[in-house]
Amino acid sequence: MERLPGFRDFYPEPLPHSDVWSAEARHFVFERWRETARRYAFRQYDGPPLEPLELYTLKSGAEIVGQLYNFTDKGARPVALRPEMTPTLARMIAAHERNYKKPLKWFAIPQLFRYERQQKGRLREHFQFNADLIGDPSPAADAEIIALLIDTLRAFGLTKEDFVVRLSSRNAWGGFFRGHGAKAEDEEPFYQVIDKLEREAPEASAAKLAALGFSSDEVGQFIAAGKPSAELEAVMENLRARGLGDFARVDYHVIRGLAYYTGVVFEAFDLKGDFRAIAGGGRYDNLIKLISGGKVDLPALGFGMGDVVLLELLRARGLLPKFDSQIEAYCLIEDEAYRQASLELVQDLRDQGFAVDYPLAPAKSDKQFKRAVELNAAFTLRLEPSEQGGFMVKVKNLRTHEEKTFDGA
Amino acid sequence: MERLPGFRDFYPEPLPHSDVWSAEARHFVFERWRETARRYAFRQYDGPPLEPLELYTLKSGAEIVGQLYNFTDKGARPVALRPEMTPTLARMIAAHERNYKKPLKWFAIPQLFRYERQQKGRLREHFQFNADLIGDPSPAADAEIIALLIDTLRAFGLTKEDFVVRLSSRNAWGGFFRGHGAKAEDEEPFYQVIDKLEREAPEASAAKLAALGFSSDEVGQFIAAGKPSAELEAVMENLRARGLGDFARVDYHVIRGLAYYTGVVFEAFDLKGDFRAIAGGGRYDNLIKLISGGKVDLPALGFGMGDVVLLELLRARGLLPKFDSQIEAYCLIEDEAYRQASLELVQDLRDQGFAVDYPLAPAKSDKQFKRAVELNAAFTLRLEPSEQGGFMVKVKNLRTHEEKTFDGA
Repeated sequence: MERLPGFRDFYPEPLPHSDVWSAEARHFVFERWRETARRYAFRQYDGPPLEPLELYTLKSGAEIVGQLYNFTDKGARPVALRPEMTPTLARMIAAHERNYKKPLKWFAIPQLFRYERQQKGRLREHFQFNADLIGDPSPAADAEIIALLIDTLRAFGLTKEDFVVRLSSRNAWGGFFRGHGAKAEDEEPFYQVIDKLEREAPEASAAKLAALGFSSDEVGQFIAAGKPSAELEAVMENLRARGLGDFARVDYHVIRGLAYYTGVVFEAFDLKGDFRAIAGGGRYDNLIKLISGGKVDLPALGFGMGDVVLLELLRARGLLPKFDSQIEAYCLIEDEAYRQASLELVQDLRDQGFAVDYPLAPAKSDKQFKRAVELNAAFTLRLEPSEQGGFMVKVKNLRTHEEKTFDGA
Repeated sequence: MERLPGFRDFYPEPLPHSDVWSAEARHFVFERWRETARRYAFRQYDGPPLEPLELYTLKSGAEIVGQLYNFTDKGARPVALRPEMTPTLARMIAAHERNYKKPLKWFAIPQLFRYERQQKGRLREHFQFNADLIGDPSPAADAEIIALLIDTLRAFGLTKEDFVVRLSSRNAWGGFFRGHGAKAEDEEPFYQVIDKLEREAPEASAAKLAALGFSSDEVGQFIAAGKPSAELEAVMENLRARGLGDFARVDYHVIRGLAYYTGVVFEAFDLKGDFRAIAGGGRYDNLIKLISGGKVDLPALGFGMGDVVLLELLRARGLLPKFDSQIEAYCLIEDEAYRQASLELVQDLRDQGFAVDYPLAPAKSDKQFKRAVELNAAFTLRLEPSEQGGFMVKVKNLRTHEEKTFDGA
């Protein structure tokens, strides 16, 4: 029996195949995400992996459904496995924001899903670190979120030689767009062309821009000039005050594909250009109002960072530690007459917080010792009868091969 | 917009409603589960939340589908949101067991799903701590798994006054069944009646037993005698050697509902009887062979412990800590001229591992201080110009109200 295409099994290391995503590597990443969020005073939330389909079509229109892992449940409800976390967050905030003082700083580590029929071999799920800041409209909030993004990557040992956050702004692009007297209904299609500039052939983009009344030259000049808008300058100044200025730069190539962004937007890239974007986000000041049917109106922004590109990048840069069983002690049971007393010793050590293993079945000494080494135990323990009638514990350090004897139970 | 019925939103504390399941309480439970698994040398794995429907119908037959959250995906595959973890584990073990030395000790914390149309208001998802031991057929393995279950509950502060693990055995019941010369095809239906004995009216059970050729008296006597089988006696002896004998007792009321159990089975209950079973499990020596189509044959056993009953029990017994933002310091910015230097200080402290927050927007001193108290900060920090032209840092302990001054940047 096989797992479904596009889904991953997470084994403990050593991995049975060449995938980078062991359960232990994933846990390592999740813990670093959580720890950085804690330092930034972000608090954890989570929502259901399954949501009403309408939560996603409401803001993105029906065309989004082609990319969703959606279906009709047994109660005839149109539902979807969540493709992103922001609509769930907006729904939760809209429902209970009065219980919390603003600004809110919340994070989550959801598993997200998509289903594109034509994309064979592509993953249909991934995990994402989502951090959002709700209730502050100023560049100070943008800078705080971007600093969190930078420090999250720094927490893995990545440096300013490894990655950069490219900053842009829907406001700056909006000014450019309106400055050319284009029609309001062309604004979102125009952003979609900008979003694909670096991935599409220049001629294809030029044709699309021309159809919207723009020349690629003027678009190219706007990007090349890269003149920071006032809000972007405020963000950069804030990051420089933190000593993080080298990790970010204004780059109007970035505009983000999702329709709900309203202000500063950003993406993090590895500087060697080996991978897709490591993370991306931006301001979505109108989304909570939309999701709440107009009842709650709060400015908000956030980012998402997936586990797949990050794990591949960390592996490529040699920044993933070696994962093994990491037990502190293996208790050898060389004589079955000592089993009861050995179990007592194991229990005592586990009660004290040590990770301890031992042979379940009777086995020869050398086989037991081999197992201790395989499990990468720091110490072996073994009981020997003491002259007083109880047991002594012989403790051997498997790094130094030093053995010490302690009076036992 | 509402979430789907039967699903939970996990907010940070303080909770906007009376549910016990905040994201922070959930994380607290997950960490205790993980930490106890570590002490027992169990290693983490995970699989997809969505599996081929066949993975569940294979062992339980088509009637299981009525309880599954199943649907047909866009590729016309019958699939189900996983209702339990054991079939996924068996699938993973069957695929790659050769990469791992036996016995395997693995754990996971999956979210599990079910969909019963008639059960209004009932949860359709929960999280479960799953621990399994693969590759050892002896009572020593049963005892190790049951000791882990006991120590997991002890890790939350629950004592032998709070809970007990009731031990039983499909082998013991099989001996009873065959001793009465009943037909082999009636064995599973007989176990289903035993499984429901404590929940059904005695007359209803008696009628069902009579139809299978048994009297409730002889069944009642077998349970009342509670004579430990040899394997259960070995398990109890092992637990007593660890000092855990008081946490378990033989009780043949337990037989477990799932068809795949083959040997020792067990359930943990709170002793006041306020809640449903806290955890349950047992030996399933034939499941991996079945799932692998006969290719891999390994004895195995394990248990599952859900988050819902556990959290309700911990809350009822006063064993859940208070969850708050737990930041170490709040940096007051009393003069906007100090903002740049304050950001530098905040960054410096976060780099050192401290959880620090500060006001994003300019605000009056007393409002900032109120926020620091709301966030339950241990300290406030504030900058004041020093005579040397830089800044001093004033650090105030919010518990003792003591303030100290340090030379700053």
